[in-house]
Amino acid sequence: MMDAIYSYQSLYNFTYAIFKQIGCNNDDATTAAKALLGADVRGIDSHGVARLSGYVRLWEAGRINSKPNIHIKYETPSTAVVDGDAGLGLVVAPHAMQIAIDKAEKVGTGWVSVCNSNHFGIAGYHAMMALEKDMIGIAMTNASALVVPTFSIERMLGTNPIAVAIPAGEQPPFVADFATTTAANGKLEILQRKNEDAPLGWVQDKEGNASTNANELKTGGALLPLGSDREHGSHKGYALGSIVDIFSAVLSGASYGPWAPPFPAYVPMPENMPGKGLGHFFGAMRIDAFRPADEFKHHMDNWIERFRNAKPADGYEKVLVPGDPEREMELIRMKEGIPVVESISDDLKKLAEKFNIEWNLL
Amino acid sequence: MMDAIYSYQSLYNFTYAIFKQIGCNNDDATTAAKALLGADVRGIDSHGVARLSGYVRLWEAGRINSKPNIHIKYETPSTAVVDGDAGLGLVVAPHAMQIAIDKAEKVGTGWVSVCNSNHFGIAGYHAMMALEKDMIGIAMTNASALVVPTFSIERMLGTNPIAVAIPAGEQPPFVADFATTTAANGKLEILQRKNEDAPLGWVQDKEGNASTNANELKTGGALLPLGSDREHGSHKGYALGSIVDIFSAVLSGASYGPWAPPFPAYVPMPENMPGKGLGHFFGAMRIDAFRPADEFKHHMDNWIERFRNAKPADGYEKVLVPGDPEREMELIRMKEGIPVVESISDDLKKLAEKFNIEWNLL
Repeated sequence: MMDAIYSYQSLYNFTYAIFKQIGCNNDDATTAAKALLGADVRGIDSHGVARLSGYVRLWEAGRINSKPNIHIKYETPSTAVVDGDAGLGLVVAPHAMQIAIDKAEKVGTGWVSVCNSNHFGIAGYHAMMALEKDMIGIAMTNASALVVPTFSIERMLGTNPIAVAIPAGEQPPFVADFATTTAANGKLEILQRKNEDAPLGWVQDKEGNASTNANELKTGGALLPLGSDREHGSHKGYALGSIVDIFSAVLSGASYGPWAPPFPAYVPMPENMPGKGLGHFFGAMRIDAFRPADEFKHHMDNWIERFRNAKPADGYEKVLVPGDPEREMELIRMKEGIPVVESISDDLKKLAEKFNIEWNLL
Repeated sequence: MMDAIYSYQSLYNFTYAIFKQIGCNNDDATTAAKALLGADVRGIDSHGVARLSGYVRLWEAGRINSKPNIHIKYETPSTAVVDGDAGLGLVVAPHAMQIAIDKAEKVGTGWVSVCNSNHFGIAGYHAMMALEKDMIGIAMTNASALVVPTFSIERMLGTNPIAVAIPAGEQPPFVADFATTTAANGKLEILQRKNEDAPLGWVQDKEGNASTNANELKTGGALLPLGSDREHGSHKGYALGSIVDIFSAVLSGASYGPWAPPFPAYVPMPENMPGKGLGHFFGAMRIDAFRPADEFKHHMDNWIERFRNAKPADGYEKVLVPGDPEREMELIRMKEGIPVVESISDDLKKLAEKFNIEWNLL
């Protein structure tokens, strides 16, 4: 079972073609393909082309509108609520992040809460849009419930990621992008494929017992908030996931908590949903709204160099700065191509057949 | 060794008198005493009157200016940088949070980064200032380095707390307030007093080995970021602590990372500090800058009720919403008084003697 290696460009062209096939216009197909591939090049394989067929199935089920009228429902000089009109999250999110950036240009910061959207790929891609404008970018999203609150056995929150991108000068930017759980669901899926156990502290079984079974979610178990258990701070991970849920969905009018819509098209929608679709939250802060940009960047360089030179523990070569692994992966994958596991290659081939697109990725 | 029980009012009066003695004017002494006691009533005993003598020692060492000229260094419609002029953090923080609130009144949100400050008590107290204005409040601060980055043995970050306060309608507000470490330093101090071990995952020794020694910080060990180790997501806690450090100190021009000034007056200041004093970061977001306030509050009530009614695991009575334990503690302590351990009572008595204030707390 060898991984196939595809170039960024060929995967991009294929993804673009698929988004065109489901009805996106050229601009939206470009935006969506770039956002989706942003995950693959950075090594977040669970959120890239691996999900392409999932988006198509959502479109087939009528849950994604490929010709959305994305619009501002309400705004102030520094805020907006955007209705994504059930568009691809991969299109809605960059649109909303751009609104945050535009507001920051004018009044220093911009904050946009989004309803009526769906899965937006990786949060970090959208947060990083702010970097080229010398802004700090923030992105988060709620997601369908897989995570229990501390002391609970009921799935109430998604893996609700937070991304923060901060520009530097000579140094590459600081880019944090993480699920508010101990481990992201994608890491469990890797263990499932390999038939391996999970470390204690990632999941619990349906009765709330600690478990190492990587398949626990298939039998009523749940992911644990960052911190794993109360003694190790899971109430903090639960609070973080809750804040993401409230900023993304309660502020915007999306569906929150256990009512967040599921990604797999075959999973029925929750009953009595209190809002529309998934929610996201974006922020942009102009660094020169706080201090001169050059001064800030000089100190960020100093911060990054100091942390990268912190004394490593025995057995570790160096201390990393958030964003280092993904940036190194991007350099490698843009040069050497993107490995895709066989099941995902098969998935893409089936998409090619379905839409009668030439399969010429290799 | 019995705890003494003091009323809120008597502890407040005493604290106010001490702040007056070190030179604060009436307004600042009121602001500082309220902020400090905000920790005691909420049960965060490590951050309340237990620190009063520490603030006095900082003043004696010339590191706190009791007559500060707190001023805006730079601003845009939605942002400001505030120079605390080495004032008490307990005074500087409410002042800066008020600026964030005033900006939110005008343009929807306000964001204030603060330099040249020092310890501000509990983050939650400042975040909660936004609630009565129907705003979401955010507060964070950097602190002297006790925490290692993932893979490191060098203390580079403080416990760098984050607080987020979100108003609701019929329900009490959502108030999260947590250190970005697995356990706060105050919890270690409690174990030290009781001569008990810490759970694995709270600290490491000076070589980076896992340890259960609650005194590990006294011999070169360190606190661990939320997540404890790489396998359980410590890189996420490290990223969160870093974001707090950068927003609070790199944005404002305060001292960051390992250069953050220490709280104990006997600890020498770090060499080559890259900025002035400690840094904080505050945010205020008007909820009606996103959707009508009544609508938002109705959905927050629904969110809170749904989470409080999530199925508890065996052995747990109920699922908590962030802020529940502290609010229950406040109700009890405002009625029954605030217990103070003997060593802290002695500390306060010595302050009374030093300033020739009548000791009539009981």
